[in-house]
Amino acid sequence: MSMDAISVIRTKRDRGELTDRQIDWVVDAYTRGEVADEQMSALAMAILLNGMTAAEINRWTDAMIASGERMDFSGLSRPTADKHSTGGVGDKITLPLAPLVAACGVAVPQLSGRGLGHTGGTLDKLEAIPGWRALLSNDEMLAVLEDVGAVICAAGDGLAPADKKLYALRDVTGTVEAIPLIASSIMSKKIAEGTGALVLDVKVGTGAFMKDLADARELARTMVRLGVDHGVRTVALLTDMSTPLGLTAGNALEVRESVEVLAGGGPADVVELTLALAREMLAAAGVTDKDPADALKNGAAMDAWRRMIAAQGGDPDAPLPTARETHVVTAAESGVLTRLDAYGVGVAAWRLGAGRARKEEAVQAGAGVEIHAKPGDRVTAGQPLLTLHTDTPERFDYALEALAGSHDIAAAGTAFAPTPIVIDRIGPTA
Amino acid sequence: MSMDAISVIRTKRDRGELTDRQIDWVVDAYTRGEVADEQMSALAMAILLNGMTAAEINRWTDAMIASGERMDFSGLSRPTADKHSTGGVGDKITLPLAPLVAACGVAVPQLSGRGLGHTGGTLDKLEAIPGWRALLSNDEMLAVLEDVGAVICAAGDGLAPADKKLYALRDVTGTVEAIPLIASSIMSKKIAEGTGALVLDVKVGTGAFMKDLADARELARTMVRLGVDHGVRTVALLTDMSTPLGLTAGNALEVRESVEVLAGGGPADVVELTLALAREMLAAAGVTDKDPADALKNGAAMDAWRRMIAAQGGDPDAPLPTARETHVVTAAESGVLTRLDAYGVGVAAWRLGAGRARKEEAVQAGAGVEIHAKPGDRVTAGQPLLTLHTDTPERFDYALEALAGSHDIAAAGTAFAPTPIVIDRIGPTA
Repeated sequence: MSMDAISVIRTKRDRGELTDRQIDWVVDAYTRGEVADEQMSALAMAILLNGMTAAEINRWTDAMIASGERMDFSGLSRPTADKHSTGGVGDKITLPLAPLVAACGVAVPQLSGRGLGHTGGTLDKLEAIPGWRALLSNDEMLAVLEDVGAVICAAGDGLAPADKKLYALRDVTGTVEAIPLIASSIMSKKIAEGTGALVLDVKVGTGAFMKDLADARELARTMVRLGVDHGVRTVALLTDMSTPLGLTAGNALEVRESVEVLAGGGPADVVELTLALAREMLAAAGVTDKDPADALKNGAAMDAWRRMIAAQGGDPDAPLPTARETHVVTAAESGVLTRLDAYGVGVAAWRLGAGRARKEEAVQAGAGVEIHAKPGDRVTAGQPLLTLHTDTPERFDYALEALAGSHDIAAAGTAFAPTPIVIDRIGPTA
Repeated sequence: MSMDAISVIRTKRDRGELTDRQIDWVVDAYTRGEVADEQMSALAMAILLNGMTAAEINRWTDAMIASGERMDFSGLSRPTADKHSTGGVGDKITLPLAPLVAACGVAVPQLSGRGLGHTGGTLDKLEAIPGWRALLSNDEMLAVLEDVGAVICAAGDGLAPADKKLYALRDVTGTVEAIPLIASSIMSKKIAEGTGALVLDVKVGTGAFMKDLADARELARTMVRLGVDHGVRTVALLTDMSTPLGLTAGNALEVRESVEVLAGGGPADVVELTLALAREMLAAAGVTDKDPADALKNGAAMDAWRRMIAAQGGDPDAPLPTARETHVVTAAESGVLTRLDAYGVGVAAWRLGAGRARKEEAVQAGAGVEIHAKPGDRVTAGQPLLTLHTDTPERFDYALEALAGSHDIAAAGTAFAPTPIVIDRIGPTA
């Protein structure tokens, strides 16, 4: 009997293991439109509920890679390392990280996306910089990478087109949350991109895609194994996303904070995570004699940032856009801030205009949330906790709704145990 | 938040119970095209793998009924009873059963379908009778029912259109085998049809949709409960489908055998099952003073048959079509026939032209398989076991392939324990 979609669906539905031939056929036939959306969504649900073996995930990733082109950075004079974050609130880390790692001698080809939902997109943030453009040809990208050592730009349509189609389908069919499909989606693009080393920042907590530590750990292990099996030196950090990273969530607001980090300042948690990821990227790329903390102090990272922004048409000295209106949320009582929920802040920033509900929507460069107190800080009744920014003040009420119940203040003196930023490290041998 | 498909899918995906409002909305929105096929197929797979509670199945059935029109037989001068079979090889029982029950004073409104796959369709069989037509208006149907007491015709498009759309989707997405969806599909049409009593013939065995007794029992219980909860007096018989029913599989061949039964003859298993189902239908309709065996003996059932066929344009006296070519399969050795596989015979009849692979195809009236020995019969090497009939002899090889390994002959004297036709009865209190 020839290959058909129903027999593939039935195999997984009945808890069987898909053969290499079934996987190659179904991914290819789906990309070509021979397998229908309603068939692939039934298969995706069966995968979500019944899982996949390591061998199946590997083959599925291969089939996604084979659906498109592959890039090659082997002609570069420097080793390459890439970072991927599963997305969080206030996660601007790519902005300081890419020039920082470049300043330490490792090329960073950072193909990024736009935000959808409550977590921001790296490209949306950089587009707050006057003149900066996300879309480069492959040749332009390689030229910036060779010259500056770091490039952050939009991923082309040529990498893993099967993933693009499948992701759009999963998004509307309640099948996003399948670890085998998340892992193969992320890793197919990263492997096709051709980086030599990869560091994964797998977020866990209310503001993350993965709310649960066990799920985040399984995702991290699955992706590390996929990377290693495909010849990419891969490591993952499990990092906290129960509260926003840093003191800003929003596009221009996060660029400003990133520049503060590159200038040697910035919030402690952003600096700590940036350095932790930079060290992993350097180690994975085989560079062991550089301390990225030095490159933040001596201006080398800032220099790389300015050249990277300028190479893509951006003016690093131009004033950043600001929102037309602000609204301050104050502390209702005095005490210790024990919780500031990442999801609430993320949704508020999104609703203020920093994010989009549909792909077609534009974002506001100046919109977002400024944070004046983080968990563990003492606060006084009436002091500002958050400043909301937007060009469209009718959104304030909707944003404030998202913030209802999103922070707790306890009596002064209440014991508070801070969550570490880096919860765990998953290496190739884990 | 307003109702949306993804939240409904997620509820079932995460093993939750759908609310009445979710079910009403998703069935209605799917019928209207607001919920997409790829969303409904993901939901169907989640239902298949995670199941549904009795309350969910009830509400789902209500929503399917609400998607279309309801019929009403309460104006008839007689009580009504209907039968539904889950489908089997050689299952011509509806043909003698409907006139037999009518002859005993109960009206039988039998809305039937065409065959798809290895089990035949009642309408395909009756269309082998010259002149007979399946398509009646509602008024014509009621007139035949009032006059003759039995009518077998095509179900209109107005009953449970949601089921029609959903069934076509399940057929191509590997989600046919979900007991809650099978039960609600069958019962929504039967309840919308407005019968007062319903007898279900749930087949189990190689030639049936349900291969496994536990699954068949669960399906039967689910359907009986649905019927009772909707005010239909419902009972189910679990019946054997490991070997074909009677001695024929095919359209005209099965009409011939049905007429033999109505004439007081016919194969013992067909007579036994016809009488068992007739008794259940009469009891469910409240008629306790008639023995259907009498109506077979005294010609009353045959009379009803002739009037029923004539009322729909058929000529009960016209010779039935025969196939142009035959091929005989003989016994390779002498002994006892211990197994004749229903699925193999069903697929062979289908391939000979008795069934169709796609809805659009026509069937051959004369094609099919005649059976000369049944399990338990003694056979002699070289004697005919089966005669294959077709108008297109190039199909013989393909049919013979389906029959490979489909029967066993053991040494004479080998103990043989026949399977009873009626395995179990599932009443409202089961």
